[in-house]
Amino acid sequence: MRIIKTREEIREAVRAMKAQGFRIGLVPTMGFLHEGHLSLVRRSRGRTDKTVVSIFVNPTQFGPGEDFNDYPRDLEKDCERLRKEGVDIVFAPDAEEIYPPDHATYVEVTGLQDKLCGGARPGHFRGVCTIVLKLFHLVDPDRAFFGQKDAQQAVILQKMTRELDCDIEIEVCPIIREVGGLAMSSRNIYLNPEQRSAALCLRRSLLAAENLIDQGEMVAGKIQAEMERIIREENSARIDYIAVVDYFSLEPLSSLDTPSALIALAVHIGRVRLIDNTIVYPKEIIK
Amino acid sequence: MRIIKTREEIREAVRAMKAQGFRIGLVPTMGFLHEGHLSLVRRSRGRTDKTVVSIFVNPTQFGPGEDFNDYPRDLEKDCERLRKEGVDIVFAPDAEEIYPPDHATYVEVTGLQDKLCGGARPGHFRGVCTIVLKLFHLVDPDRAFFGQKDAQQAVILQKMTRELDCDIEIEVCPIIREVGGLAMSSRNIYLNPEQRSAALCLRRSLLAAENLIDQGEMVAGKIQAEMERIIREENSARIDYIAVVDYFSLEPLSSLDTPSALIALAVHIGRVRLIDNTIVYPKEIIK
Repeated sequence: MRIIKTREEIREAVRAMKAQGFRIGLVPTMGFLHEGHLSLVRRSRGRTDKTVVSIFVNPTQFGPGEDFNDYPRDLEKDCERLRKEGVDIVFAPDAEEIYPPDHATYVEVTGLQDKLCGGARPGHFRGVCTIVLKLFHLVDPDRAFFGQKDAQQAVILQKMTRELDCDIEIEVCPIIREVGGLAMSSRNIYLNPEQRSAALCLRRSLLAAENLIDQGEMVAGKIQAEMERIIREENSARIDYIAVVDYFSLEPLSSLDTPSALIALAVHIGRVRLIDNTIVYPKEIIK
Repeated sequence: MRIIKTREEIREAVRAMKAQGFRIGLVPTMGFLHEGHLSLVRRSRGRTDKTVVSIFVNPTQFGPGEDFNDYPRDLEKDCERLRKEGVDIVFAPDAEEIYPPDHATYVEVTGLQDKLCGGARPGHFRGVCTIVLKLFHLVDPDRAFFGQKDAQQAVILQKMTRELDCDIEIEVCPIIREVGGLAMSSRNIYLNPEQRSAALCLRRSLLAAENLIDQGEMVAGKIQAEMERIIREENSARIDYIAVVDYFSLEPLSSLDTPSALIALAVHIGRVRLIDNTIVYPKEIIK
């Protein structure tokens, strides 16, 4: 496994692999890898010939006052895990390699970027789109792999890829959960044991929503109310949003009258902001 | 010469050429071709193996009230001229092929896009960056060719290409002028004979500026004042801007104390907005 730090080297390495006819998979990450990331790596290994994992804590997707400086990092351990997974290349550039001091070029998916997490994190998805497009240009992958945990990110990147005519398949892979149901996240390390237990309310509220829908509930407000009730049982939980939206437009639904709905929430447990979601296909439920 | 209308076909055609090891040159245009465009085509033919010319009047770079609907179009004549030049592919998609109804993804070079022409044409360069990046993804060229006449566009696209890590060389080619000195532009067709004669004041003011600089003038204000005096001699001319700026940052200069300065102006002659410019290298002038 090669560990590459510069743009020039990654370009050359990819060019050499492509010249041999290999199909490239890209797994973009911010490092501090968990089983969620590794599931993407395994998917890429199954679907492509060569897997490139990028590890880059991207400054442009953090807002002022967010945890850019504190974001957990452990490149050595990450590389150890990726080597065991059979990854071909780790691309781990420094921030200065990626952004010159006068960097001013940004990509955005207007509309979608302001919804859900975009409300609390203005500029976040602009930063995500920009770094992902840069990685697409540097790594020139055939497929790129993202986690369903970041549902809005996945929807936005799929739209960006389509609307900018990138010749890249985006694969969105299922959420991986810890025992108890907490969605894997590098930020879970911030949680103390009580908070970790309180954090299970996110998943509990999603399962309650799915249960209501299975029983025929179509009114978004009723589903949200039940989710809110469950979250409020935890004293340390503070709701950012609980949303029932169309999966593609991210527009709020009053009724689940759509082929695919996204039920998503963001909740602060202490100072940690957690997100989770589920996709439901109301039209496919047999009545 | 193939004329291609769809994204799928252009991708396939380029893939086939690349598989044979050909280097691709792209000349993006809005059609209604003149000698300026053809000079880009000839440059591309000299520097690459296969030349793709795109003809697309890009709606996202026109503001409300601008001349999108009236912009001159003549695809048949354009293709005739390009065939004679030995172009390999003309890519001339319809707007619906390029932009879906809910298109929302945009690329911008913040800062630069608001200067000079960006003042009178908000959103213009965002539209330019977005269509050019889409063409880059569709045509996957090794080199792309743009005219120096659109100086700000060239600076912005060079910065975009660099900052998004596109693996594409941008070549900016000299302004081609009609007899008398008027810079070639598809919009010159809007000028009646008196206006065409009045329009020569742009070039005259630029030559006066160069003459002053040759004589040692370093004060931007004095250069601008002389240019303004020349333009004001034409009754039908209305100045949008006369700018003396650093070539890369487009920041106004008070003195020509820079390796390369851009002297640019935009002037309305009747209802036609014309632009012209020159680059000067003050540090290289032997005193």
